[in-house]
Amino acid sequence: MSEDKSNQYNAPTEVKEIDIVNTFELEELAKEVMPSGGFGYISGGSGDEYTKKQNIDSFNHKGILPRVLADVENPDTKTTILGHNIPAPFIMAPIAAHGLAHATKEAGTARGVSEYGTIMSISAYSGATFEEIEEGLKGSPRWFQLYMSKDDELNKLIVDEAKKDGATAIILTADATLSGNRETDIRNKFVYPFGMPIVSRYLSGSGENMSLNNIYAQSKQKISPKDVEFLTSYSGLPVIVKGIQTPEDALLAIGVGASGVWVSNHGGRQLDGAPGSFDTLEEISRAVGKRVPIIFDSGIRRGEHIFKALASGADIVALGRPMLYGLALGGWKGVQSVLEYFETDLKRVMQLAGTQTVEDIKHAKLFDNARYK
Amino acid sequence: MSEDKSNQYNAPTEVKEIDIVNTFELEELAKEVMPSGGFGYISGGSGDEYTKKQNIDSFNHKGILPRVLADVENPDTKTTILGHNIPAPFIMAPIAAHGLAHATKEAGTARGVSEYGTIMSISAYSGATFEEIEEGLKGSPRWFQLYMSKDDELNKLIVDEAKKDGATAIILTADATLSGNRETDIRNKFVYPFGMPIVSRYLSGSGENMSLNNIYAQSKQKISPKDVEFLTSYSGLPVIVKGIQTPEDALLAIGVGASGVWVSNHGGRQLDGAPGSFDTLEEISRAVGKRVPIIFDSGIRRGEHIFKALASGADIVALGRPMLYGLALGGWKGVQSVLEYFETDLKRVMQLAGTQTVEDIKHAKLFDNARYK
Amino acid sequence: MSEDKSNQYNAPTEVKEIDIVNTFELEELAKEVMPSGGFGYISGGSGDEYTKKQNIDSFNHKGILPRVLADVENPDTKTTILGHNIPAPFIMAPIAAHGLAHATKEAGTARGVSEYGTIMSISAYSGATFEEIEEGLKGSPRWFQLYMSKDDELNKLIVDEAKKDGATAIILTADATLSGNRETDIRNKFVYPFGMPIVSRYLSGSGENMSLNNIYAQSKQKISPKDVEFLTSYSGLPVIVKGIQTPEDALLAIGVGASGVWVSNHGGRQLDGAPGSFDTLEEISRAVGKRVPIIFDSGIRRGEHIFKALASGADIVALGRPMLYGLALGGWKGVQSVLEYFETDLKRVMQLAGTQTVEDIKHAKLFDNARYK
Amino acid sequence: MSEDKSNQYNAPTEVKEIDIVNTFELEELAKEVMPSGGFGYISGGSGDEYTKKQNIDSFNHKGILPRVLADVENPDTKTTILGHNIPAPFIMAPIAAHGLAHATKEAGTARGVSEYGTIMSISAYSGATFEEIEEGLKGSPRWFQLYMSKDDELNKLIVDEAKKDGATAIILTADATLSGNRETDIRNKFVYPFGMPIVSRYLSGSGENMSLNNIYAQSKQKISPKDVEFLTSYSGLPVIVKGIQTPEDALLAIGVGASGVWVSNHGGRQLDGAPGSFDTLEEISRAVGKRVPIIFDSGIRRGEHIFKALASGADIVALGRPMLYGLALGGWKGVQSVLEYFETDLKRVMQLAGTQTVEDIKHAKLFDNARYK
Repeated sequence: MSEDKSNQYNAPTEVKEIDIVNTFELEELAKEVMPSGGFGYISGGSGDEYTKKQNIDSFNHKGILPRVLADVENPDTKTTILGHNIPAPFIMAPIAAHGLAHATKEAGTARGVSEYGTIMSISAYSGATFEEIEEGLKGSPRWFQLYMSKDDELNKLIVDEAKKDGATAIILTADATLSGNRETDIRNKFVYPFGMPIVSRYLSGSGENMSLNNIYAQSKQKISPKDVEFLTSYSGLPVIVKGIQTPEDALLAIGVGASGVWVSNHGGRQLDGAPGSFDTLEEISRAVGKRVPIIFDSGIRRGEHIFKALASGADIVALGRPMLYGLALGGWKGVQSVLEYFETDLKRVMQLAGTQTVEDIKHAKLFDNARYK
Repeated sequence: MSEDKSNQYNAPTEVKEIDIVNTFELEELAKEVMPSGGFGYISGGSGDEYTKKQNIDSFNHKGILPRVLADVENPDTKTTILGHNIPAPFIMAPIAAHGLAHATKEAGTARGVSEYGTIMSISAYSGATFEEIEEGLKGSPRWFQLYMSKDDELNKLIVDEAKKDGATAIILTADATLSGNRETDIRNKFVYPFGMPIVSRYLSGSGENMSLNNIYAQSKQKISPKDVEFLTSYSGLPVIVKGIQTPEDALLAIGVGASGVWVSNHGGRQLDGAPGSFDTLEEISRAVGKRVPIIFDSGIRRGEHIFKALASGADIVALGRPMLYGLALGGWKGVQSVLEYFETDLKRVMQLAGTQTVEDIKHAKLFDNARYK
Repeated sequence: MSEDKSNQYNAPTEVKEIDIVNTFELEELAKEVMPSGGFGYISGGSGDEYTKKQNIDSFNHKGILPRVLADVENPDTKTTILGHNIPAPFIMAPIAAHGLAHATKEAGTARGVSEYGTIMSISAYSGATFEEIEEGLKGSPRWFQLYMSKDDELNKLIVDEAKKDGATAIILTADATLSGNRETDIRNKFVYPFGMPIVSRYLSGSGENMSLNNIYAQSKQKISPKDVEFLTSYSGLPVIVKGIQTPEDALLAIGVGASGVWVSNHGGRQLDGAPGSFDTLEEISRAVGKRVPIIFDSGIRRGEHIFKALASGADIVALGRPMLYGLALGGWKGVQSVLEYFETDLKRVMQLAGTQTVEDIKHAKLFDNARYK
Repeated sequence: MSEDKSNQYNAPTEVKEIDIVNTFELEELAKEVMPSGGFGYISGGSGDEYTKKQNIDSFNHKGILPRVLADVENPDTKTTILGHNIPAPFIMAPIAAHGLAHATKEAGTARGVSEYGTIMSISAYSGATFEEIEEGLKGSPRWFQLYMSKDDELNKLIVDEAKKDGATAIILTADATLSGNRETDIRNKFVYPFGMPIVSRYLSGSGENMSLNNIYAQSKQKISPKDVEFLTSYSGLPVIVKGIQTPEDALLAIGVGASGVWVSNHGGRQLDGAPGSFDTLEEISRAVGKRVPIIFDSGIRRGEHIFKALASGADIVALGRPMLYGLALGGWKGVQSVLEYFETDLKRVMQLAGTQTVEDIKHAKLFDNARYK
């Protein structure tokens, strides 16, 4: 593990395809090449990391049932989300500060995502400008994720810029109005080693050398359905509310015009003591009743997890930490390798589970392990 | 870890603010500075420590659901309990022999509690006199916790003295008519290294060099509703019955005039093999039906725990071991640091859970993890 | 740990009172002083030792609820079983070959039991004769536990002898018609280092240098209700059927005249993969409906366990392994120490749970931990 | 552990009876004598090995209840399956490439199975020819397990050959149309060190130096009820569909003429994240309603497991990995030792559970451990 020096953050620079046995191993390998402060920030959860751990463990609460006489061959992972055709039911999740993982920052991730052909989510806390990201993205579809400013005029400015950049949807992250209790960052006295050009206009500084606590505190806390309404009407774009963990909030969001519900607990980085994100999905999905698509994240590490999420009501999932580990290990090629790994893994699961299409997955019946324990 | 010498107990003396990452770490740090006998006494539970462990683990039986469109900013932790306004829904729990943790004894705790502004519980097994405690408390509100004597005349004397000292409520501890099976103390041959001036009038000695078993045996065993009646009518003060773990006892206590129900299993120090205290709270709360306030303790280590307790029917919680660890590490300033840590932590949880006020917490719906396991 | 030499088994010989912190520690201490073959035989279970482990863990499926306004003082542990007054609701369980634990063999155990004042169970696989045991027992009450011969005439002879010795009840062990899968004994190539005078008349040898498998195979396999009838009518004594784990067998036994039901899974030494004995108790107790008393064993290590067993329908419990560990560590005085430990521990539990008498324990309501997990 | 050399695979060659304490130990011993690539292939599961682990752990979800007044002696393990009388309710499971475990390949296994007297399953991925296997089998009953070719003419050829060899049933493995995610094999870069003469006619090579992924990909993916129909009508033999984990697939198979349902998740080697095979058995059995026999595998390591499977609806079980460990350790004599171990173990369980016959096991009531946890 490399040493963090103040003001000198040595992010990895290698660009190469990577062999992936599984994404847990990927995390261990990324730990070797990333500075410890950056690795701690990306890998860590909040508090006891109970919720972070549940995000993965909760997938074991349901079992996939192999259907073995299903006449399946070469399963088809293609699907559509909000008008975009994507090669598989997963996209890039919005994550801050990709520069912690690789010197190419968000542009590296964007290129890997673009080469693979799925959707990039650009975080408001990006360490690269829209222009820099476009160098990797090269016209590929992108959604813009917003942490709101307390000042709606600045929010308009930022949305304007995102639209100009070509965003086809706005993701409003609603579960991070303050930083979660990230004990690893506290111990590491972690501050961002570089600025955040997109939101720096509402920060007291550029973002550089600022702690997460400081930055979140300067964003808007009082998120309410009115913000969804405002963003919808001002942007004219579909607005997806991210961080939903209850049927109530899903319905509130839909009620004021949200075009998508993003079920997530922020990878166990915000409110610890919350249930595993997967445990909340089925009930939310029943409440949503297919009115809008559901995007799911928090804990996806295998094709099996994607299958279980889709069989529990998600339309697509978003990939977070594993993508940044891929970036750390191989730059844009590493990102592409991660996406290809997930496609291969999902295809095998689909074949073995007897599902030819993404639609088939959504109709698959899961086994309730709780019955027998 | 320091050595215990008979008749020479070297309690820590340092007074300083402390940085708190979490209260589990606090315990480890306190272990370094406290004599082992005293640390064992404070940290230990009874028997297999099953119940002590459940006190913390049982909080994971329920999950906090983040509500993310709740229009919350700068949550307000202030609340009121039995006529006292306090800055946050937690008070100091009654604990014996603070002198084990710090040379300033209960006066140190009292000062930290007073500076923070919440309520001090003075234990009948205090190692300091009322006068000494008052030096730290400086007129701040206090409740007096009573272990009853077998002789009611002595009980009257003690209550008189507590009233004279300004106690605004009497806490009758009902779950400790004998000592729990404290194996750590047995192994350490632990005896109190100093006297207990408040109850020494009903002991065969001052308390010094006496074991917990010996002291408890000299207190009153036959606690019944009549004792609640007696204390209520004699003292004219609100009487809170502490150690309640069943709806039946809660109703019995209310029936004879108790002004509060204190749900507690004594931090897992009394009857091992009992359920986690949090697991008993919801059912008791339903039985109490808001007739009287509920105070909860046993296992509170994080803001999340406070939130879950309040969402399950508690009006406030009481803090025990973490407070004495703060005392050990930093005297009155350490105590204040602990209280500030809990307020900060609770505020973050309230923001992330979408609750503006303590009243909002009480109306929050928790997720039942048992459903999915 | 001492070495086993063939034909030279060096059992401990020390006679002394022992200090007991808990019975788990007692096991570790006994391991130090006993030859490994003998210790393995006594401590081991069958197969994966899943059932042996469940015997203790299953007590955590229910929680004791402290009742704190119950007007209790100096709880009374005295009770009556089949006409015998005993100081506490526990007796000695029948166990083979006490000589593995101490040179005084069953006479040592008998003396400790007699001094304490409860009932001795004499195993048919005793390594001592009735006469030798009487030296320790000195007229105290005893029950005789029978492993039946395939030859009923020999069974009559043995019963005659037991009656002559003064047995007031016959315990028919029905769950050990073959040896369980004791892997520790297989690995140790364990054979009994001395004979079994009581049953040697139906063995091909004295018992010395014979394996458990060999001995069990020579006893009767086809145990049926007719055997209960036969023993009842031939002996004229109360017959208790030991090894019951189902309501069905309890009712069958009662139907043919059994005077008691002994719920046990033989300490997890017979059929592995069976539930914890405590988990089977409540349902059996409901089926028995107080027609006959219930004796419970398998897993009792603490006063809390005795309490939970009685609150779930047992009238008394029987103590096995901890008694032999006491014997190993202190001869008859060690046995007495173990019995006194359990009485002290049970009394504390009774006080803290708010139960004055054994009858009160039987009416106590337990908390179902399964509800919250 | 020996080293794998490319093209030089040193399989064990020893032939001897083996002492078996339990089959878990057998696995450890086999690991010592087998080349690591071969051991990894046989012992490994897929993905997180969650399902592989559940296969064994799920047996603890049910408890065997000892019936102790059941008049049982010398239990009889004999049973009948599809017209064959077998000495005990277990047969050899179809497994590829026995040559990984022993130089005698499938012929060694066949001889052990034949000497014991139960049914051999010959895998289509056998490393030996029918003729070679017959040298061990010597006319004993055999079933032929088929991985289908994409070309039905080749399937006919293979079936013809199996019939000529004397197969009395066809096992259609339906759950392995692709290889599971065997991470151990990926890490070991495992390829088969020798060919597969039976299916080599539909492979691009002999099988030698080919990976499992490659081989599976060349077999037929689109398995459907029509394949069951085809095999049934073309072969005129009973067809058993292997890999069933749902009542739906069981009924589909029976609907098109399957003569048996083989409940299996391929030893946790195919779809990870699936429930333990035992957890799926009871519900499938209820759906099948005795229309056809049920064969069960995945996780059988003890007599207790056989008992629980039969009490949950299986007619017989199939033994996989433990058989190959026996082969590795002692050639055909080792295989026989494993079968004798299971018979002895099952007999003891039957005696202790109070069941005289295989039919009695099927009527035994299990205890639901979930009720109490």
